[in-house]
Amino acid sequence: MRATVMFEAGDVRIEDVPDARLVEPTDALIRVTRACICGSDLWPYNQLEHSETGVRMGHEAVGVVEAVGADVRTMKAGDLVVMPFAYSDGTCVFCHDGLHTSCIHGGFFGTGDVGGAQAEAVRVPQADGTLFVLPVGEDDALMPSLLTLSDVMGTGHHAAVAAKVGPGKSVAVVGDGAVGLCAVIAAKRLGAEQIIILGRHADRIGLAREFGATDVVSERGEEAVERVRELTGGFGAHSVLECVGHGQAVATAIGVARPGGAVGRVGVPQDETMPASLPAFFGNVTVGGGPAPVRAYVEELLPDVLEGRIEPGRVLDRAVGLDGVPDGYRAMNDRESIKVMVRP
Amino acid sequence: MRATVMFEAGDVRIEDVPDARLVEPTDALIRVTRACICGSDLWPYNQLEHSETGVRMGHEAVGVVEAVGADVRTMKAGDLVVMPFAYSDGTCVFCHDGLHTSCIHGGFFGTGDVGGAQAEAVRVPQADGTLFVLPVGEDDALMPSLLTLSDVMGTGHHAAVAAKVGPGKSVAVVGDGAVGLCAVIAAKRLGAEQIIILGRHADRIGLAREFGATDVVSERGEEAVERVRELTGGFGAHSVLECVGHGQAVATAIGVARPGGAVGRVGVPQDETMPASLPAFFGNVTVGGGPAPVRAYVEELLPDVLEGRIEPGRVLDRAVGLDGVPDGYRAMNDRESIKVMVRP
Repeated sequence: MRATVMFEAGDVRIEDVPDARLVEPTDALIRVTRACICGSDLWPYNQLEHSETGVRMGHEAVGVVEAVGADVRTMKAGDLVVMPFAYSDGTCVFCHDGLHTSCIHGGFFGTGDVGGAQAEAVRVPQADGTLFVLPVGEDDALMPSLLTLSDVMGTGHHAAVAAKVGPGKSVAVVGDGAVGLCAVIAAKRLGAEQIIILGRHADRIGLAREFGATDVVSERGEEAVERVRELTGGFGAHSVLECVGHGQAVATAIGVARPGGAVGRVGVPQDETMPASLPAFFGNVTVGGGPAPVRAYVEELLPDVLEGRIEPGRVLDRAVGLDGVPDGYRAMNDRESIKVMVRP
Repeated sequence: MRATVMFEAGDVRIEDVPDARLVEPTDALIRVTRACICGSDLWPYNQLEHSETGVRMGHEAVGVVEAVGADVRTMKAGDLVVMPFAYSDGTCVFCHDGLHTSCIHGGFFGTGDVGGAQAEAVRVPQADGTLFVLPVGEDDALMPSLLTLSDVMGTGHHAAVAAKVGPGKSVAVVGDGAVGLCAVIAAKRLGAEQIIILGRHADRIGLAREFGATDVVSERGEEAVERVRELTGGFGAHSVLECVGHGQAVATAIGVARPGGAVGRVGVPQDETMPASLPAFFGNVTVGGGPAPVRAYVEELLPDVLEGRIEPGRVLDRAVGLDGVPDGYRAMNDRESIKVMVRP
């Protein structure tokens, strides 16, 4: 079958690889009908050292179940499923707590002997705990938005939950990428009164406003902190959604939080440390978040997608076939595209 | 009047200073009947650079109101009051949220023109919002425990609240100083099932066990992390109470947290950064806490002190007069004493 393989920074190829197949009795094999390129795929796209064997890419998908192992109970061949970016058994103590990304028997796509989703097919471990059967056909018009439940929409929602967004709250979203835009949707959906987006790309800011952003801050660093304070009565935002991951973004996120406020981090940290003292400690600012347990959020978010109340699929502003994936990486890296959908 | 002044690291003196007096109509003047030396006073005791004028010391007190300004409504001369380590107006948006340490009109004792509490008397700004009238006499046998409501007991409680301690939870307390010991009391009081104290001083560990600690970890660093994991089924603790403040303690606190767990920091940070990536981010560990709004906790904790259900005053294992304060600093710094009470 054909799959996306990255050999080093900037070198993404579509390769012939061994067909995905069932290995464990708890596996499902899915034919990928939609995948995407993730903002987090751009970190290796800029930094990966040369690898002879290459790294399989892609961790977001909607697909049709082709086959299931003997122990799989909740789906059958032909079902359309959304695949969260992490697999999880759904039964361990962490899954019970809704933290599927820490599942004792879980893991991530594109690591070990589990392939990536930017491919014709993918083996899904722990299928019962991981996959969610969708009540629509594979060419449904809502497909882009349904696809975001595999990662970005659930991740934006996780940032909002970790940052304790609620009715009447002031919210700052750091980052105007696909996750930041979904974080705006999530903040609006949870009742935020004021939603400030920190970003500087006109097309993305326009979409953020349509999603519910009330204010835009295009400054960076200390100037951004000052500007958010001005917009929030001098205090900072109750809830800050960090959707970038590099050190300055995290420092800015902590800096724009109001005393007693909360930062929800979902950008994969690119730095080993973050500010510990001022203003995090002295302002009693809580810093939470991490890899989003998107599987825990599918049930909650799905009705809003199906009934059109949220349209996170609008962040997918370009669609390519597998052959277009390498250029899709380039386009996202050059900020020509917010997020690329793949139709293998 | 006589007051404690620190001129540089290791140089603490009892000096004659101008009498404390009312300045603002919202002030109260209190005669200090009990004060203490705080673990946080040991940071300047080890690090303060030479100061010609010196720094007034002490921020914990019980005292008798001597006089009140024209605008003070809730107390009168002769009342016995407990003085939280920060003053606060009690009416601003942050005080309403229970975050008195971020009060818009608040501040800290021993800074600016507000004196310290290791003195015969102290001016208390924002008296109505700051002081809490106690229903006992100034020589009540419960005085040591009542005095801890000005800082250490409230601070230990804040660590427990920030770390989301609750019934059935596993708790790790990093540090066996007075705050760590009060954190054990707080964790027990809030229903923790397992309370692991990380410390290595036999006398303090003994007291921790009497307060409710179920396990002791005397290792440090990675070994401590491994040991706490062993004691918690391999996962780490639900709630971690960081009661030290230096970098290794904070890293250990984050390291012993279970995925999805919470760290409550109350040790004043001595490092500018803390770990951002593993395990904080990837384990979805929440890091919260800061200066404790102890004023917010007096009402909740006072009945348990008055009815003898908690005995935080036991951390005060030495009592001195004002003249004994310099040696009290030395004794705490040499770990001869857990915490020193001052009777001016």
